[in-house]
Amino acid sequence: MTRRATVHLVAARHPGDAAAVAALLDSGAVKANRIVAILGKTEGNGCVNDFTRAYAVEALCHMLAPRLGLGAAQVAERVAMVMSGGTEGGLSPHFLVFAVDEAAAPTPGGALALGTAFTADFQAEELGRMAQLRATARAVREAMAQAGIGDVADVHYVQVKCPLLTMERITAARRRGATVATEDTYHSMGLSRGASALGVALALGEVTEEALSDAVIGADWSLFSARASCSAGVELLRNEVVVMGNSTAWGGELRIAHAVMPDAIALPAVHQALRGAGLDPGGGQIGAADAARLVAVLAKAEPSSTGLIRGRRHIMWDDSDINATRHARALVGGVIAAAVGRTDIFVSGGAEHQGPDGGGPIAVIARV
Amino acid sequence: MTRRATVHLVAARHPGDAAAVAALLDSGAVKANRIVAILGKTEGNGCVNDFTRAYAVEALCHMLAPRLGLGAAQVAERVAMVMSGGTEGGLSPHFLVFAVDEAAAPTPGGALALGTAFTADFQAEELGRMAQLRATARAVREAMAQAGIGDVADVHYVQVKCPLLTMERITAARRRGATVATEDTYHSMGLSRGASALGVALALGEVTEEALSDAVIGADWSLFSARASCSAGVELLRNEVVVMGNSTAWGGELRIAHAVMPDAIALPAVHQALRGAGLDPGGGQIGAADAARLVAVLAKAEPSSTGLIRGRRHIMWDDSDINATRHARALVGGVIAAAVGRTDIFVSGGAEHQGPDGGGPIAVIARV
Amino acid sequence: MTRRATVHLVAARHPGDAAAVAALLDSGAVKANRIVAILGKTEGNGCVNDFTRAYAVEALCHMLAPRLGLGAAQVAERVAMVMSGGTEGGLSPHFLVFAVDEAAAPTPGGALALGTAFTADFQAEELGRMAQLRATARAVREAMAQAGIGDVADVHYVQVKCPLLTMERITAARRRGATVATEDTYHSMGLSRGASALGVALALGEVTEEALSDAVIGADWSLFSARASCSAGVELLRNEVVVMGNSTAWGGELRIAHAVMPDAIALPAVHQALRGAGLDPGGGQIGAADAARLVAVLAKAEPSSTGLIRGRRHIMWDDSDINATRHARALVGGVIAAAVGRTDIFVSGGAEHQGPDGGGPIAVIARV
Amino acid sequence: MTRRATVHLVAARHPGDAAAVAALLDSGAVKANRIVAILGKTEGNGCVNDFTRAYAVEALCHMLAPRLGLGAAQVAERVAMVMSGGTEGGLSPHFLVFAVDEAAAPTPGGALALGTAFTADFQAEELGRMAQLRATARAVREAMAQAGIGDVADVHYVQVKCPLLTMERITAARRRGATVATEDTYHSMGLSRGASALGVALALGEVTEEALSDAVIGADWSLFSARASCSAGVELLRNEVVVMGNSTAWGGELRIAHAVMPDAIALPAVHQALRGAGLDPGGGQIGAADAARLVAVLAKAEPSSTGLIRGRRHIMWDDSDINATRHARALVGGVIAAAVGRTDIFVSGGAEHQGPDGGGPIAVIARV
Repeated sequence: MTRRATVHLVAARHPGDAAAVAALLDSGAVKANRIVAILGKTEGNGCVNDFTRAYAVEALCHMLAPRLGLGAAQVAERVAMVMSGGTEGGLSPHFLVFAVDEAAAPTPGGALALGTAFTADFQAEELGRMAQLRATARAVREAMAQAGIGDVADVHYVQVKCPLLTMERITAARRRGATVATEDTYHSMGLSRGASALGVALALGEVTEEALSDAVIGADWSLFSARASCSAGVELLRNEVVVMGNSTAWGGELRIAHAVMPDAIALPAVHQALRGAGLDPGGGQIGAADAARLVAVLAKAEPSSTGLIRGRRHIMWDDSDINATRHARALVGGVIAAAVGRTDIFVSGGAEHQGPDGGGPIAVIARV
Repeated sequence: MTRRATVHLVAARHPGDAAAVAALLDSGAVKANRIVAILGKTEGNGCVNDFTRAYAVEALCHMLAPRLGLGAAQVAERVAMVMSGGTEGGLSPHFLVFAVDEAAAPTPGGALALGTAFTADFQAEELGRMAQLRATARAVREAMAQAGIGDVADVHYVQVKCPLLTMERITAARRRGATVATEDTYHSMGLSRGASALGVALALGEVTEEALSDAVIGADWSLFSARASCSAGVELLRNEVVVMGNSTAWGGELRIAHAVMPDAIALPAVHQALRGAGLDPGGGQIGAADAARLVAVLAKAEPSSTGLIRGRRHIMWDDSDINATRHARALVGGVIAAAVGRTDIFVSGGAEHQGPDGGGPIAVIARV
Repeated sequence: MTRRATVHLVAARHPGDAAAVAALLDSGAVKANRIVAILGKTEGNGCVNDFTRAYAVEALCHMLAPRLGLGAAQVAERVAMVMSGGTEGGLSPHFLVFAVDEAAAPTPGGALALGTAFTADFQAEELGRMAQLRATARAVREAMAQAGIGDVADVHYVQVKCPLLTMERITAARRRGATVATEDTYHSMGLSRGASALGVALALGEVTEEALSDAVIGADWSLFSARASCSAGVELLRNEVVVMGNSTAWGGELRIAHAVMPDAIALPAVHQALRGAGLDPGGGQIGAADAARLVAVLAKAEPSSTGLIRGRRHIMWDDSDINATRHARALVGGVIAAAVGRTDIFVSGGAEHQGPDGGGPIAVIARV
Repeated sequence: MTRRATVHLVAARHPGDAAAVAALLDSGAVKANRIVAILGKTEGNGCVNDFTRAYAVEALCHMLAPRLGLGAAQVAERVAMVMSGGTEGGLSPHFLVFAVDEAAAPTPGGALALGTAFTADFQAEELGRMAQLRATARAVREAMAQAGIGDVADVHYVQVKCPLLTMERITAARRRGATVATEDTYHSMGLSRGASALGVALALGEVTEEALSDAVIGADWSLFSARASCSAGVELLRNEVVVMGNSTAWGGELRIAHAVMPDAIALPAVHQALRGAGLDPGGGQIGAADAARLVAVLAKAEPSSTGLIRGRRHIMWDDSDINATRHARALVGGVIAAAVGRTDIFVSGGAEHQGPDGGGPIAVIARV
């Protein structure tokens, strides 16, 4: 039997809008028990107190539970729910439903392949440290095995959802005598994403184990994965990993490609990823025919730590009204929208160790 | 004697950073008494309580006063100071210094020409209404005459700085029995920009006088100027107008061109403006040689009133943490940066009656 | 059979934390089928895009559904869920569970009595207008009848949850040719609250029907209810009304009292409400014994429209980073906490026509 | 000759409003050359990009320069300008003008005495560390000597203005091989305030030198000063210190007293400070006669690091839309306004090592 990956993008009217995904199931386009992951771009602030992510997860679980014959809590254990908060600028809230069903035969030249894996729940003191990093690397290898991808070169995107520290978790750790990587809850999101990304880099051979330690996490930006995308959320305690690649063992009409944006305004890198997936941006923006073949754009956004973009000062880090990640998502969303002529793009903030400083990975999934 | 317009872009380290402009004067590149206008992109929120605009004006006036042999208050009466707050996304704070000096001879084919004019101070009850609109139209005609531009087709950009209502001005109006166009201070910024833009449209023949009334201001978005750019600020009580066009009577090496972005992600319109000014975006982003010839990009950004961009929902209007204009500047800044590879772009928010709903004018000044 | 009202306050760990209310049910302290209303102070921004309210409602409904043998949607039809977003300053997120069970006999001197009623769903064009006002007045009378309160003087608090306009609802109204009271989504919250409050005032005889019209809603602040508290939320389309008063026909040990804060810093009014409920603030802050008898504090907060508090300027209306209602909740929360020495206070923002301009009603429920 | 300290409170219409202070000088109430310090509560966000502080300083310096026969830059060297950003809740923007002139004779029982001192400019790597701490302690001793206060028990408030790190200063430090205490610009404000406060504590004998090290700054909250109030701002590079106490060698009718708020809602501590300065809060709020004798209230506000206020959760640390210090100022401003019936209170955020965790010092200056 040949596996086939499908990806459906549906608009979300609000964070708790499970209706659009339900319609997809009701139409028969996707079978509930074939769903392996749902990625969502929700309209919260993408920071510590962004409850739109948990709200979306809760709504999706309650919608899926009767369709899967499970309790709501069991749904979240089975389907990777990766909600990324923040639709700044023009970004449009949406869900991406990833499913695996069957094809008659493998696609010559290969097709999109998916694998998922979860770590165990983390203790507060493990977050942002080697414990989280190593557990993530193991989960990536497990997900690759599940996808039947043996060569790391065939992996084009690894989506990770990871936890963060809240004041409550920090004080609980304190009570049992443990110290945490940071007592700043907002900062904990970056460390958790960073440790997760370096876990991906380790699994994909982009960094060596010797180069890694607690001290480099959130500090040495020369170490990064070109294919990791990590989102932190208050609603989970473990890492959830979705590996996306191409495989000649899979069927279907989808392909994935990726590129690395060296900085936040690197339109040529966006073009490269589009071309890799068989789309032609020509003189700048893809045309209507190609736009219709575009299924998903997944990218990371981050303010450069230098405070500069090509030598010109940005104010993202100095702005105490709007968090830096919010500025970055808005900016990168604009650059990518310029190329694809659409705003339902999965731009996720906080690219610590995900692509070079100030840049980030971008992946495109398209119909051949 | 032939006039020549010069435009210098200098980075601002903070809103009160007059030092960069002072260095321009000290170097001899610009003579203080030849400055006609300074446009600034300052790093405030661009909304009611954005004091970075007034701070920049105060700092520039105090720096220029001894150089002009004037008091600080007199400087602001003589030089149009148009500060636009908000450098969301990747936008980089900067000042644009517009001066007029002399050339040996007119440039064949024409060159950038500048004219400035001011209205009288407005009463609170005149803002956002026909009184402000008509006074602006008169000022535009006056500035065109000053620039020696007779044909409205030669006007490519009209920058207007206009006042807003504060609670204090509203209550003062109430005390003398007057009613104001709105009691919502934030909303007053949009009405003031809208009335000013329709004043520009009236002067440029883009709308007819019969179509105009208090009722259409801030309401009938089918009426607009393709060349107006209006910024509201708490630091002034009059409208300040700078007309930019091309004239065969002027010398120098600068040219201006404009286009209209039909929506916020209209990369092709950005390309059109670049080409109009003699720059080649080729496959997407202009190269290093063209980037060096680019002097200034001036654009307006606005969330579409429909809540949609090409059919996809944006959340700008529903976000109560970040004002809609802030989202829009970040987005349009990203789209333009994708084309020019630079972030020191003068993107100004609040495009009421400035370009079509959700879009806006864009002008490019470049060395030939 | 004599009715008895019970009120339990439980802390919320996050907006979707139904566990604390579940524990109350599991302990037997409250029976699920006796719950008539749940009020919640959730930690969102309390404005248009505050999804913490809907998230809390969804979580509570899913928790209650199996306990009531109903579907989740039916729970919300039966139990009034009044979530008020915004815990600025020191306010502590919590839920107040109102239930009605039985007492052996009426309490001499009377006890807390509760009644609830719902309007039909509103069309977008009815919000902020007489249609919403009149429907609310009818619902208040219905809730009073249900509570067995015949004299309006025995009513001490009327909590109303009301809808707001989103861009989607506005455009839907436009498509069917209807005009709405405002196209500013944030402003629609104030108009909806204001119309609802005047509906309460009409039902309680605090204003006459002749004084009311679409034009006074959100405009004539001399008209108000001293006992209304209205919260707007995106998660409902109807008004939900909870009437609280004292009745000699009810049993139990709870009493309610109210006072009106003439401005935001009116500590004496807070003291008056505390004394009315039998608590003694003495020299300023109630002591430990009285604090233990305090069951709930319910209050409204609002920035004065004059921009002044006792002649001194506040900046709430001019702040474009933090909405005015958020400032007001933080301030009034501080003033009340000074008197009660606790921060789990139900301070709700947006007091349009709820108490005098800049002030608001405050109610205290305490054990005798 | 006997010295006399005067303190005048004037309202500010906006951050650059030097006119109110100018009117004070023009009226003869204060002589320009007698001003030793101006404290200002300005309406910015009080965080990294709060330019209202620098704007106020610039406006005051330009106003004072001709009156003092100095350049604007020299004014700032001579007069301590301590601007504290943030007027959340109901706080009212104002300036406090501290001057020293002459009295006929010392006041029996003593009167308000003032002393000022400045450190040298700090390097970025000195901020938040022992270098800043020790320099601050020296400046406090110097200011006490200047005020003629020999006994630390007579010191009731020490106001310190201190610098912060910006991305620019951090990268400059990096370039010369230095490491800074934090690379998070917002966090640097807390470390700078904390080091300054411990400097005050060291000078006043509230902590011993042995207990101090880089490691305890921003970490060991058991170490604090009960009389320090520190504000960080981007507009200066040195610490500016104003010592306030009572001295039997000074004349005039003013007295200062202080108390320590153990937590943010400690109304009794506010009452204690009022009583110490001869004002009677009676049953809660001081009456009109006492309010007229109240000259200034100075207090620090801070969220408790435990995330709790008297056992109830606050959300200040978890809120990524509004900084924790902004919540805290609003809350403490409400508590103090409840006692004094006024909103022009100098509540300054960020009380690291200033009072106990979650609390802070409060000082009251009143006419006898």
